Amino acid sequence: MLKDLKEQVFEANMELPKRGLITYTWGNVSGIDREKGLFVIKPSGVDYEDLKPEDMVVMDLEGNRVEGKFKPSSDTATHLELYKAFDKVGGIVHTHSPWATSWAQAGRGIPCYGTTHADYFYGAIPCARGLSADEINGEYEKNTGLVIIETFKNIDPMSVPGILCSNHGPFTWGKDAKEAVHNAVVLEEVAKMATRTEAINKDVAPAPQVLQDKHYLRKHGANAYYGQK
Amino acid sequence: MLKDLKEQVFEANMELPKRGLITYTWGNVSGIDREKGLFVIKPSGVDYEDLKPEDMVVMDLEGNRVEGKFKPSSDTATHLELYKAFDKVGGIVHTHSPWATSWAQAGRGIPCYGTTHADYFYGAIPCARGLSADEINGEYEKNTGLVIIETFKNIDPMSVPGILCSNHGPFTWGKDAKEAVHNAVVLEEVAKMATRTEAINKDVAPAPQVLQDKHYLRKHGANAYYGQK
Amino acid sequence: MLKDLKEQVFEANMELPKRGLITYTWGNVSGIDREKGLFVIKPSGVDYEDLKPEDMVVMDLEGNRVEGKFKPSSDTATHLELYKAFDKVGGIVHTHSPWATSWAQAGRGIPCYGTTHADYFYGAIPCARGLSADEINGEYEKNTGLVIIETFKNIDPMSVPGILCSNHGPFTWGKDAKEAVHNAVVLEEVAKMATRTEAINKDVAPAPQVLQDKHYLRKHGANAYYGQK
Amino acid sequence: MLKDLKEQVFEANMELPKRGLITYTWGNVSGIDREKGLFVIKPSGVDYEDLKPEDMVVMDLEGNRVEGKFKPSSDTATHLELYKAFDKVGGIVHTHSPWATSWAQAGRGIPCYGTTHADYFYGAIPCARGLSADEINGEYEKNTGLVIIETFKNIDPMSVPGILCSNHGPFTWGKDAKEAVHNAVVLEEVAKMATRTEAINKDVAPAPQVLQDKHYLRKHGANAYYGQK
Repeated sequence: MLKDLKEQVFEANMELPKRGLITYTWGNVSGIDREKGLFVIKPSGVDYEDLKPEDMVVMDLEGNRVEGKFKPSSDTATHLELYKAFDKVGGIVHTHSPWATSWAQAGRGIPCYGTTHADYFYGAIPCARGLSADEINGEYEKNTGLVIIETFKNIDPMSVPGILCSNHGPFTWGKDAKEAVHNAVVLEEVAKMATRTEAINKDVAPAPQVLQDKHYLRKHGANAYYGQK
Repeated sequence: MLKDLKEQVFEANMELPKRGLITYTWGNVSGIDREKGLFVIKPSGVDYEDLKPEDMVVMDLEGNRVEGKFKPSSDTATHLELYKAFDKVGGIVHTHSPWATSWAQAGRGIPCYGTTHADYFYGAIPCARGLSADEINGEYEKNTGLVIIETFKNIDPMSVPGILCSNHGPFTWGKDAKEAVHNAVVLEEVAKMATRTEAINKDVAPAPQVLQDKHYLRKHGANAYYGQK
Repeated sequence: MLKDLKEQVFEANMELPKRGLITYTWGNVSGIDREKGLFVIKPSGVDYEDLKPEDMVVMDLEGNRVEGKFKPSSDTATHLELYKAFDKVGGIVHTHSPWATSWAQAGRGIPCYGTTHADYFYGAIPCARGLSADEINGEYEKNTGLVIIETFKNIDPMSVPGILCSNHGPFTWGKDAKEAVHNAVVLEEVAKMATRTEAINKDVAPAPQVLQDKHYLRKHGANAYYGQK
Repeated sequence: MLKDLKEQVFEANMELPKRGLITYTWGNVSGIDREKGLFVIKPSGVDYEDLKPEDMVVMDLEGNRVEGKFKPSSDTATHLELYKAFDKVGGIVHTHSPWATSWAQAGRGIPCYGTTHADYFYGAIPCARGLSADEINGEYEKNTGLVIIETFKNIDPMSVPGILCSNHGPFTWGKDAKEAVHNAVVLEEVAKMATRTEAINKDVAPAPQVLQDKHYLRKHGANAYYGQK
């Protein structure tokens, strides 16, 4: 069942330790088959060195486990809400990557300080508001998803493919699991450089909007001219 | 004698260089057999590349070397006090891992800024008071243990499995040597992210208590639901 | 065509990931054959692991692709302007290396704080002014080159073989592609140490001019006495 | 000639890139045979991957090259002065290791903030005064040695086996080349942790003297009890 998607999601999960984004099992990647309405996600708390493609868990969009011997990631309900609300998203990643998590713990969105950021994220990377006590004590993981969606009320999630959850860590996404991981790597690099940029210049301002536009549109949309396409 | 425990303690010691927690021989791990009242610890100042399971030293809880051709770690008396006072602890680690040691040198406990911390440590990770001149000039390593125990007067050591010793470095522990090392890795990661969190937001406050509760209890206790158990 | 130069430029490009200067495809190296008036540059957006010497693109100094199945780097027009203006430059590198990029994002040139810097760069490493909206919306990559050249109006580019582009990242150069990469590595190291130097001493001043002279001239010019020459 | 010493000095030099202390050729190690009055040092500017034991250069204490096809390190005159003034020193290292160099560029000695430092360096690691213009324009490398010696007027170089040269970088030493490199690694680690310690606590004070005494004497002198001796 969904053999190719399981393989893709497995490969995307294995990129997390390879790229230095995770310690132990602190991350998870999923990918969705929009036609079938099913998504595939890493099982909860299994060591990466033991993980196999067939261990990936298949879920439907009501949150039922359709296939898999393992329990799905404890963050599955967050992924599910994002897939329901963001209909162009094909893959989602959650990590505790240290630089992005430090911004999340600091409760600040990441200003766009340069073209590295602008090449991938169109404007600041937002930090979601903290959850209320009721939201935490209720369906916590689902509510985490709902607060992310609330933050994107006026933002296109395909132009800003990631967010920081307050006191927690980042989620990123993309057209598939592979691109979602790519964006997680970029976010970590951008978070690192933003921290250092502020250390070097306490009064630094975001990059001019015209430069942000130029770089984002150099890589995205009808007039993109980066790469071989 | 205690062949399995020696193997476990050896493996746990070898994780320290592999995980980047130590330079040269700056660390030691021990594990205890509670039924026999004996613990096994790394020898003092032996290079990791030369270390073998049979080099582990067997000690009793009076501080006598029961078996082993090498002298035990110079911090053995600290481990011994902790085993006597914390009866659920099965393994102990001491390192000079750089981020945790920097907090110890700064004389500050690590506030809980997020869920990475809360998943493992329930509340702030304390920094013990400095030892008095008499405590330093007397039985220094034993007194180091006693000051740790004093700090945990009103804290459950199994909920906060680690501490910073002022101007020195961290000790962590767990139900066995492997878990103690796992907690040493987590502490280092948490110490790193806390430093950066404060750099990004000078006025940052600890994570809300309700979020700390949620995450700690998601992984620990009767209602835990993380992982495959 | 230009087989040796392609091989050199390929090798120089492969140094970028090996030396930790780039994430994904965020960099490009070129090298020029001054007699033929042709330069060789990395193709745009091709993964480093797939790159081969024969994939390098040959360009003339009017910006025409003379040979190559791939599109050249999107920064080709910047390289071209630099080759035309700096006649002793034989190789050029652009990266988003994190420390140098943080200075570029901060909009500050790097003061010469010590001999590591002075051994390679004679005086501060400048940060170019930001481009105007017209310059960004017009021939952006060409204008990036022109602003670099403007910055070097009164500076010898062979004595200061690199620059930071505001809100973007570094360019470095040298007598050939290999030396240009060497200077990119040095710039990253110097940028890292300058950041930390200012953290350790908020009121630090540049190194004395006489020391900067000594070290630069120890390695460069007629009286150099470093190395085996 | 001095085959064993050449081998030791070669091995010690090869530790520098292995331990991450150097970029390119930015370091050198020497070792002395006190009976013969000859020391062996790395040649200047030779790539580490090409270096062989027989490439080491043999020098006498008048600064004459006694054997070797290569020119000795450009810092040879500094090593020579230290060997003449510090009669128990058997090996010397110079690097531009990034954390120690950042302190040197900041012009500050490193306070003793904890036991990692105190285990190896008895008190603060000093920063030498900057050289005068005459000292720089005269016999620069020799004068670098003389200023180091001046700094140790009232300090035992075997108790504080290293120094920072203003706007330049560290020198360390030891009873032989291997121990000198060991101290260079320790210095880099101590410099890193001191920087972070000050970031975590702006008002931090050095570790209590009694703790510094305890740790230094635990490893050094007649009553040492660390290790297997």
